[in-house]
Amino acid sequence: MENISPFKGIIKDVKGRSACYKQDWVSGFRSGYRILAPTTYIFFASALPVIAFGEQLSRDTDGALSPVETLASTALCGIIHSIVGGQPLLILGVAEPTIIMYTYLYNFCKAREELGKQLFLAWAAWVCVWTALLLILLAILNACTIITRFTRIAGELFGMLITVLFIQEAIKGVVSEFNIPKGENPNLEKYQFHWLYTNGLLAVIFSFGLTITALKTRKARSWRYGTEYGVPLMVVCWTALSYTVPRKVNSGIPRRLFCPLLWEPESLPHWTVIKDMGNVPIEYIFAAIIPALMIAGLYFFDHSVASQLAQQKEFNLKYPSTYHYDVLLLGVMVFQLMLLTYSLVVLLPFFTLICGLLGLPPSNGVLPQSPMHTKSLSVLKKQLIRKKMVKSAKEGKLQHASNSEIYGRMQAVFIKMDQSPALAVDNELKNLKEAVMRGGDGDDDAKENFDPEKDIDAYLPVRVNEQRVSNLLQSLLVGLSLCALPVIKLIPTSVLWGYFAYMAIDSLPGNQFWERLLLLFITPSRRYKVFEGAHASFVESVPFKPILMFTLFQFVYLVICFGVTWIPIAGILFPLPFFLLITIREHIFPKFFHYEHLRELDAAEYEEKSGTPRRNFDLIREEQSTDSRSEGSEDDFYDAEILDEITTNRGELKLRSRSTKEERFIQKKRQNSTAAAIGFSVSRACYDEDC
Amino acid sequence: MENISPFKGIIKDVKGRSACYKQDWVSGFRSGYRILAPTTYIFFASALPVIAFGEQLSRDTDGALSPVETLASTALCGIIHSIVGGQPLLILGVAEPTIIMYTYLYNFCKAREELGKQLFLAWAAWVCVWTALLLILLAILNACTIITRFTRIAGELFGMLITVLFIQEAIKGVVSEFNIPKGENPNLEKYQFHWLYTNGLLAVIFSFGLTITALKTRKARSWRYGTEYGVPLMVVCWTALSYTVPRKVNSGIPRRLFCPLLWEPESLPHWTVIKDMGNVPIEYIFAAIIPALMIAGLYFFDHSVASQLAQQKEFNLKYPSTYHYDVLLLGVMVFQLMLLTYSLVVLLPFFTLICGLLGLPPSNGVLPQSPMHTKSLSVLKKQLIRKKMVKSAKEGKLQHASNSEIYGRMQAVFIKMDQSPALAVDNELKNLKEAVMRGGDGDDDAKENFDPEKDIDAYLPVRVNEQRVSNLLQSLLVGLSLCALPVIKLIPTSVLWGYFAYMAIDSLPGNQFWERLLLLFITPSRRYKVFEGAHASFVESVPFKPILMFTLFQFVYLVICFGVTWIPIAGILFPLPFFLLITIREHIFPKFFHYEHLRELDAAEYEEKSGTPRRNFDLIREEQSTDSRSEGSEDDFYDAEILDEITTNRGELKLRSRSTKEERFIQKKRQNSTAAAIGFSVSRACYDEDC
Repeated sequence: MENISPFKGIIKDVKGRSACYKQDWVSGFRSGYRILAPTTYIFFASALPVIAFGEQLSRDTDGALSPVETLASTALCGIIHSIVGGQPLLILGVAEPTIIMYTYLYNFCKAREELGKQLFLAWAAWVCVWTALLLILLAILNACTIITRFTRIAGELFGMLITVLFIQEAIKGVVSEFNIPKGENPNLEKYQFHWLYTNGLLAVIFSFGLTITALKTRKARSWRYGTEYGVPLMVVCWTALSYTVPRKVNSGIPRRLFCPLLWEPESLPHWTVIKDMGNVPIEYIFAAIIPALMIAGLYFFDHSVASQLAQQKEFNLKYPSTYHYDVLLLGVMVFQLMLLTYSLVVLLPFFTLICGLLGLPPSNGVLPQSPMHTKSLSVLKKQLIRKKMVKSAKEGKLQHASNSEIYGRMQAVFIKMDQSPALAVDNELKNLKEAVMRGGDGDDDAKENFDPEKDIDAYLPVRVNEQRVSNLLQSLLVGLSLCALPVIKLIPTSVLWGYFAYMAIDSLPGNQFWERLLLLFITPSRRYKVFEGAHASFVESVPFKPILMFTLFQFVYLVICFGVTWIPIAGILFPLPFFLLITIREHIFPKFFHYEHLRELDAAEYEEKSGTPRRNFDLIREEQSTDSRSEGSEDDFYDAEILDEITTNRGELKLRSRSTKEERFIQKKRQNSTAAAIGFSVSRACYDEDC
Repeated sequence: MENISPFKGIIKDVKGRSACYKQDWVSGFRSGYRILAPTTYIFFASALPVIAFGEQLSRDTDGALSPVETLASTALCGIIHSIVGGQPLLILGVAEPTIIMYTYLYNFCKAREELGKQLFLAWAAWVCVWTALLLILLAILNACTIITRFTRIAGELFGMLITVLFIQEAIKGVVSEFNIPKGENPNLEKYQFHWLYTNGLLAVIFSFGLTITALKTRKARSWRYGTEYGVPLMVVCWTALSYTVPRKVNSGIPRRLFCPLLWEPESLPHWTVIKDMGNVPIEYIFAAIIPALMIAGLYFFDHSVASQLAQQKEFNLKYPSTYHYDVLLLGVMVFQLMLLTYSLVVLLPFFTLICGLLGLPPSNGVLPQSPMHTKSLSVLKKQLIRKKMVKSAKEGKLQHASNSEIYGRMQAVFIKMDQSPALAVDNELKNLKEAVMRGGDGDDDAKENFDPEKDIDAYLPVRVNEQRVSNLLQSLLVGLSLCALPVIKLIPTSVLWGYFAYMAIDSLPGNQFWERLLLLFITPSRRYKVFEGAHASFVESVPFKPILMFTLFQFVYLVICFGVTWIPIAGILFPLPFFLLITIREHIFPKFFHYEHLRELDAAEYEEKSGTPRRNFDLIREEQSTDSRSEGSEDDFYDAEILDEITTNRGELKLRSRSTKEERFIQKKRQNSTAAAIGFSVSRACYDEDC
């Protein structure tokens, strides 16, 4: 693994992907209209932040860049990636780190009269050129293997920093609504105190309103009640509400999105940046290496993590047992790393390059959209498999085929659709087989007899509809939304500030750093409460003191990182601490922490102990299964929920294992876990029982 | 029970209470400073609504009545009741129905030139006179026995109506902030559009802010984190925030509480109402009977229910088994009814009378404060008993007494403090006895040996510190808050509108009518979710259709009742539907509903099936008991929480029984429920196991 030559990796990748390349398209189109569900789902999930970041960027760069560019970049890179990309599950987009970096670049240029605003994009283009080169270099130096060293501590610290920056952005945004925007004429009626104040109050209402309602819809556990489109829906609602402001209020209130339209002159110069690149003084061309180093590092980090999380679910769900797990992890990691080498060596640099040359902020793999994408596709796949298997089973019944024949048909369908080796399938369909066989041959004893329509759902293993169409379509939609800018401009800026707050808060659950921080505030006698809900495994396996130290260190480190971002120009080095963290983690931590504790606190995967309530979920399901199965159509949503429950908001899959505090229950559990602990529950039950 | 002559009842009461009257004061003062916790707790819980109602009243009566009067009435009646009252646990206060009634009275007077505003209070005094007479009459006619006919359906319908009225008040309030108050000069600067609008927006922020934060603090499960004083604290916070409004904003914004100070002329006339009573035309004196009928009915209803709920906890917690339960309920009901006859015949009319004559809106027993009071006192009692028993046990250990001796001392202390027959105690302390005995004599095997400091909490049965001091003190505090009016006037009105919304939302959980309404909106396949949490027993025992019909009827009826309140003058008859409901329930319902279903849906007590998660709570506690017990001081809060968990927000005690869906678990449960299922858990465990 340490010494894979990149080209070997690329070739393996190209071979690997090209083998299924045709299939990627075929199965995509085969899914028919149903593909639109995951498509629109991901579209909204990735378009909204991109717009928000665009608005942030346009404020920080005095309009040099705007949602137009962020959307364009996201669409462009997305389309290319979905066509020639390695892993089509990976969703690309302009992310917060890019925005921050570009802000530093802009401020740097503004401060230098040799560059100034007009050469900002040209210089940024140079930065991109260097970044591209560095990314290639990184990959050639087998940097992919380093990914394994980006442990949880770095990932979550970075996540927290982004969260903090989001909060900061939200606050800055709302406060700015009380003030006159820089460069505006203060004598305008709408900038008189009472209107400014009105605007500010409206901003408070809209931003808090959006944050709270969005979080509520997100929490609404049922997809029926719109977890999927809840947040974009809320943006629409609050935008609509913003038009209920009485006419007597000054027309400039509330302030709305500022961005030029695609066809307006402001957005034209971007496309001709390449010819300005020559005007950049040579020394600055080389100075561009420094930011390039940072950006390259960031992208490398972000892109790989996103890609990993987008690919984790398959192998986890197919091989739930933790016994094989580590072996597999290793194997799949290598496989992943290859895909990464490919997308790192060829694509990411390419994106960075063209975006740079087109004067667009580059895109990279984004979280949590990428894993969300995979998740929604697994739901889709299940719907498809289910449909066909039920059909074949019913035919069988009509022809009074024996149960074994019926199972045979179903298995055949599954194998055909899954293109997986019959052997593996046999194992995965074991429970289905039992269920079908259990039915008394012929006779219609409803209790015993297997009704495909109703009963099949519980027995289907998870499959993901791996294809390129959904990614392509959603990228095209993002592109189309450029034409929707006149509509997008109706969104009040305050709603976006609320959206930043929403993104921040929504990213916290599942971040163990955050959960550990909370843990510190729980009075000792109340810690038992933690065990009532599902809880990260370290809570049980690591004594409090190490947790405390580890968390405090992480917190102090976070404060430092945040501090760095405040340094005017040198702030551009803010990623350095993260790279530094690798060394600290590797060489200093072991001196202070017990190896076992470190492994727990800084585990590569999100390990979770099922809370006591959780353990009974299956039994309840068992009790209720008759009711819940009676509406087959519901189960799609229902399954989707289970997938929701077993992933963190960041999209990490939770490896759920039984709480060691509950050993004594295993036996009973085993006795009871029958019909319920299968099918979708297989995966879950297996987290429960380390089977 | 049907034929108790009232005087018999009163005599029994007076005897019963006077027997423990001295003790009521002694044990009150014995509790020392600790009595202040429940006192302040209840003070805040009852003072805030009274202020809110006062503000509502002052708007609806153009300032004829204000918080001054509501507070005065609450304080006055509270003091009297705590001294000569029957059940000192009962908390009195001016309640919403009174406000509504008085509003009708006022509007009626305003419309009649013979009366007009100036004779409003005089006429109201006559209404009070009649009401007093009617209440006495009611009691003489053994009306108390009717209380049993006020079933859940009436109670919850009434509760819901109040909720709806609160919401209405909140909305009306917030909307009013956008408009010029009637009778104000529209040319004032602060009533120019942009200031009106600013005021409105601030109102939206403050009211929603208070509602949300108050609900959050209420939800915060730990008393540590201020469930106790959370809500008043929030009122203070938002009031403070309202002063962060920049100076440039017109000084009249945001609007604040309007109420005259006690010593200002506006509040003086009230005290001389009695001499105006002669000026009321004779026909109106008799017309006053009609509202009197309504008010008498309302008070009778409210007062009894409040008193019942304040007294329920004792017998429930002492006799948790449902086998004896019904017998006891009957017994204690009679006992209660006597206390009621007393407080109904003698005190309530008396309050109504003097309040009327003093031009104050009368007070009556209030929810949920009364049961809250009992609840907080049970926590107090536990602290006291614990302290002494631990002391005696430690002495025993020092003198190397045998375990049986030690237990003997502890039991003696308990009996002394509880004045309960040794026999009953023996039974209740059975588990404690075992625990103490278990300890190997002398040897200090920490595992086995009983450590009073740490272990006792789990074994103490619930006792309530029944006394009159806390009630007296809190009434005095309410009285003192009249002098705090200058401070109270700082509260922005919008915060109060938010408080109305809070009271409304907070009253919903535990209202089975509400829970059934929600149930109707859950898609069939998702109903199983209900079983995950604790759920009212009817969910399991009654098929969906009856639930649907029952709920729809209740809903339509609610709409009708709400409609009635909108009728200008005749709206005063709004309690009629509730009295009507008794007949409907008794004679019409049985024709449409199965007897069993009716009994479940309209159960006298709040019966709850433990949700599946709940079932494991004790076991977790067991696991954690060592940690959680290690801080003795924490347990007080902790116990309080359990009490929280086993009462509805209205203060009803939940009778928790095992979900029938989980029969199969009993055996295991039995095996496991050892140390955990005792002491405070006894009550809970018993709900769990119908023991």
